[in-house]
Amino acid sequence: MSRPQPLSGFPELLPRQRIVEQQVVDHLRRAFELHGFANLQTRAVEPMDQLLRKGETSKEVYVLRRLQADDRDASDAELGLHFDLTVPFARYVLENAGKLNFPFRRYQIQPVWRGERPQGGRYREFWQADIDIVDLGELPAHYEVEVALVVADALKGLPLPKVRMHVNNRKLSQGFYQGLGIRDTEEALRIIDKLDKIGRDATAKLLIDGVDATPEQAEACLKLASISAEDSSFVDEIRALGVADPLLEEGLTELAAVVDAAAAAAPGFVVADMKIARGLDYYTGTVYEVFIEGEEHLGSVCSGGRYDKLASDGKNTYPGVGLSIGVSRLLVPLLQAGKLDATREVPTCVLVALNHEDDRPASNAIAQRLRARGIPVQVSPSAAKFGKQIKFADKRGIPFVLFTNDEGTQIKDIRSGDQATVDLDTWNPPAEDLHPRITAA
Amino acid sequence: MSRPQPLSGFPELLPRQRIVEQQVVDHLRRAFELHGFANLQTRAVEPMDQLLRKGETSKEVYVLRRLQADDRDASDAELGLHFDLTVPFARYVLENAGKLNFPFRRYQIQPVWRGERPQGGRYREFWQADIDIVDLGELPAHYEVEVALVVADALKGLPLPKVRMHVNNRKLSQGFYQGLGIRDTEEALRIIDKLDKIGRDATAKLLIDGVDATPEQAEACLKLASISAEDSSFVDEIRALGVADPLLEEGLTELAAVVDAAAAAAPGFVVADMKIARGLDYYTGTVYEVFIEGEEHLGSVCSGGRYDKLASDGKNTYPGVGLSIGVSRLLVPLLQAGKLDATREVPTCVLVALNHEDDRPASNAIAQRLRARGIPVQVSPSAAKFGKQIKFADKRGIPFVLFTNDEGTQIKDIRSGDQATVDLDTWNPPAEDLHPRITAA
Repeated sequence: MSRPQPLSGFPELLPRQRIVEQQVVDHLRRAFELHGFANLQTRAVEPMDQLLRKGETSKEVYVLRRLQADDRDASDAELGLHFDLTVPFARYVLENAGKLNFPFRRYQIQPVWRGERPQGGRYREFWQADIDIVDLGELPAHYEVEVALVVADALKGLPLPKVRMHVNNRKLSQGFYQGLGIRDTEEALRIIDKLDKIGRDATAKLLIDGVDATPEQAEACLKLASISAEDSSFVDEIRALGVADPLLEEGLTELAAVVDAAAAAAPGFVVADMKIARGLDYYTGTVYEVFIEGEEHLGSVCSGGRYDKLASDGKNTYPGVGLSIGVSRLLVPLLQAGKLDATREVPTCVLVALNHEDDRPASNAIAQRLRARGIPVQVSPSAAKFGKQIKFADKRGIPFVLFTNDEGTQIKDIRSGDQATVDLDTWNPPAEDLHPRITAA
Repeated sequence: MSRPQPLSGFPELLPRQRIVEQQVVDHLRRAFELHGFANLQTRAVEPMDQLLRKGETSKEVYVLRRLQADDRDASDAELGLHFDLTVPFARYVLENAGKLNFPFRRYQIQPVWRGERPQGGRYREFWQADIDIVDLGELPAHYEVEVALVVADALKGLPLPKVRMHVNNRKLSQGFYQGLGIRDTEEALRIIDKLDKIGRDATAKLLIDGVDATPEQAEACLKLASISAEDSSFVDEIRALGVADPLLEEGLTELAAVVDAAAAAAPGFVVADMKIARGLDYYTGTVYEVFIEGEEHLGSVCSGGRYDKLASDGKNTYPGVGLSIGVSRLLVPLLQAGKLDATREVPTCVLVALNHEDDRPASNAIAQRLRARGIPVQVSPSAAKFGKQIKFADKRGIPFVLFTNDEGTQIKDIRSGDQATVDLDTWNPPAEDLHPRITAA
């Protein structure tokens, strides 16, 4: 077999890059669990009819077939790989509703697959980390505040470029358009969603052509979209535009609550931004998009919103609010550019050197004593010259080599060359050396 | 949408079952890392020509197609979902050989997919946890001892039924057959692999018909297959059969080393068992199969072996040794039978009760103070009557409810009803209540 080539759109990591990804995912998991979110893992496949319910993404689905399917399988439903974690979660909630306690909060960290053409920051297989809170019948608005705070907490303390969450509220925008006298408020939202791409003039024209807006109405929509603030001062700015509508008022109250709570809990993280529209129809309240500061053109690295009908089985409706962090989208470019790295490429903290191959059982026993106290250890591959054994450690970034000589058990820090006799039952590496750490360039 | 039905062969877990699975996987991961194994995650897909290299499993592959593939994609390689973690690992090693340090030890915990008919303990999507050590050119035999010890360590301390690892060595069996005068030793191995299913007489007949064995040779093969021991006493038993062959001697030495080391490090876990053959052609040294004791008929829950040619690019050859733990195969039946459970269905240790909805920001602040010390907390969904808030905690198994009254901050253990005034900056739950724990029925 000749050397295989990477598959475009299916990024894979080297061991030291994977250590970074693993620690970031561990950090997210820990944050989600501290906020009481339970983990779920759904199967990778869904019946095609489930996946095609949202028209918009249907073109991206990978369809499965069994290589040797036979007649007896005719009854098998056609299956495809999930393209997000929301569709499987909604299906899971309906399937297991009788066994779940609502409000139900879950996180889910899994790969998703989209058959789209791979290009800058877009992959065919990538990891997402989702949180959602779903309730039965009614979902209180305070959860729209909470999920923003959970994500603020989860992204805090990670060695990532500075990110900010831009929030808006569907009721606010749609109420404003309604108050202006625009009828097709959903279409107006979809047009405003294009503002950053096509510019003010083209957007105004689309509003005039697409939703029968007067030039004055279009101008008011653009004025609204230009408002942003880190606190609830946007409320007065919007009121100053002179539009009155009960839905607008609801939206103002809800958005102010999100922004004020976030300003108190995570100063500088959340900004109210009236041009955030999110193209998808199913959002009904707060909508969120997180951008890398100064790199907004790359698109959001985390997004979500409130949907009054995450799932419904005809009898019951399950409203929800959630956010999805694009783990691969955030990390893979930083890893590939060498902007994030790990202090070593193995978990190993100590290499136990061998004087002679016959000592291997004794060295294994020494390794087990350290492992029993949580220290990752491996034993040297061979009783080569001591310099060669040190080189083995050095190449992998293993900081300590343990060896036995006439003076007893010695541990050498191969970075400094410092060496000392140690007691195997009490010696500990410095806390920062116990596990690999992430370093940022 | 009506209530969706589960898909046969794609097991999914309820939140409390998932907590068990998550903790088992965490335990395996920790054990592998303590032994210096680095984690890898490979993509879910491989080109079909890679997947079809092993004829045996080709019928089980799920092939992918993009729903809206167009002409420009004609150059795309046909892709399928991986059916194990060995084929992707071998491909990864070849693809990245220049960037890896050998010997390279990695673990990989991912789902795999097989399109086979779902039946008792067989799934179409299931999780495996693999460890492998791979080297460039030569792989010392001591790694065949080591991987057995790592798996012994990894399975130790899990609330699972008692399992035992049955080991044999290909050189031993093939050397013995060779010494007897049987030519097609690989076919003889494949026949002996069927012994448990078809019995002694049918096996003897197959040996006579299939590899031209005399009745005496067939009898000697069956005698060898009947030998098993928890220590290296099997060596003398085999020698007593009077067959001499250099390959047999190598196998005896290597298997004795594995069994003796394992008997010292993990007494009772490993048993030398000469009827273990493993049907696959590519094993060349030690072979391993782990069975649940008394449930050997269910098949192995972990298996593997040494292969001298895990991968080869024509110039270099990469021998390896590895084991694969069938995580779903081990856990799903136990979870579905209710034999394993978790002490609660959420990570949450403390529910912060609300006196009034206006107190939510203050309650969030209290929750954050506890989270900062690693305690998973959530705030009550509403300022309902206190009894209702306790019921919310009780239904999920959350052990503690925190509330504020005239006497200050109180924490109630809702299982005992005990209640005490606490200092938020020093209170800790008992260690066994901090996180959910696994319980075994």
